[in-house]
Amino acid sequence: MRWIMFVGVAIAALGGAAVTMIPASGQTDGEAAPIYGIKIPPGYRDWQLISVAREEGNFNDLRAQLGNDVAIRAYRDGTLPFPDGSIIVALHWNYVASEENNKAFGRSQSFVAGSPKNIQFMVKDSKKYAATGGWGFADFTDGKPADEAMHKTCFSCHEPIKARDFVFTRYAP
Amino acid sequence: MRWIMFVGVAIAALGGAAVTMIPASGQTDGEAAPIYGIKIPPGYRDWQLISVAREEGNFNDLRAQLGNDVAIRAYRDGTLPFPDGSIIVALHWNYVASEENNKAFGRSQSFVAGSPKNIQFMVKDSKKYAATGGWGFADFTDGKPADEAMHKTCFSCHEPIKARDFVFTRYAP
Repeated sequence: MRWIMFVGVAIAALGGAAVTMIPASGQTDGEAAPIYGIKIPPGYRDWQLISVAREEGNFNDLRAQLGNDVAIRAYRDGTLPFPDGSIIVALHWNYVASEENNKAFGRSQSFVAGSPKNIQFMVKDSKKYAATGGWGFADFTDGKPADEAMHKTCFSCHEPIKARDFVFTRYAP
Repeated sequence: MRWIMFVGVAIAALGGAAVTMIPASGQTDGEAAPIYGIKIPPGYRDWQLISVAREEGNFNDLRAQLGNDVAIRAYRDGTLPFPDGSIIVALHWNYVASEENNKAFGRSQSFVAGSPKNIQFMVKDSKKYAATGGWGFADFTDGKPADEAMHKTCFSCHEPIKARDFVFTRYAP
């Protein structure tokens, strides 16, 4: 009986700790992106950080790339190609000057993540997406997928980085 | 017997999922930062993302702020002041142009996280750090803490943002 209680508590404790990071095993009820049929995976915002980026020009944004457990493990172990089940998400935010930070630093130099722009997913399924390097692509703004024309541009843009399994982002230590 | 096996498997599965996100309950064996006595908390790189930033000027870097479970929950719930046990870490990387990305975009606009610079922690302990708003501060480069003079500057810089419990970074959705 004591054992059963201990086990119950252990499961509850581990379950509590794990809740926010259980990898997306299902999909949300939202609309699927065209071509690849990908929906927004639940809990993606809680995934671990791969790296960050800044795009100037027309994008003018700040970016973070997160990975689910399968993707993060592959990054850490240097596993290429990424195993099936890997999902990488890129979060894009508007590039906004921070007056609060600038005041603290005593000069205008600080920019932070503003309102969210689009989010983009790469989902590895070597059979389902065999024609596009094993990756499916999806782009959403405010929970709505971009159109088919936009999704047709994804793979051709990622093709040059075939040597790293079509993934541009490197892990930032 | 079946139950015991099931329970064992369940614990193993949850344990496996939870390993990378168990909050820092201890500290590493490294050197403690002066004044506040903070060591680098184990596993901090696996914590969840709060936001990202870009500093121009002398810093010239890209930044990400991560939080342990206590800090992330406070952000999500809008809890202020942050509860004891909250830890926020800021990761700073050199700002590096990405030729790979630029080639894909067809123009020079892309910058990514380069080699790591310093990492900075804020640790909430309202009793231990009562004199500095309940926060202890620590700065490390290559695992080595900065000197006492540097650590004396932390709180005065954070003081203006008292209305948000001395934390500049807002959660990026």
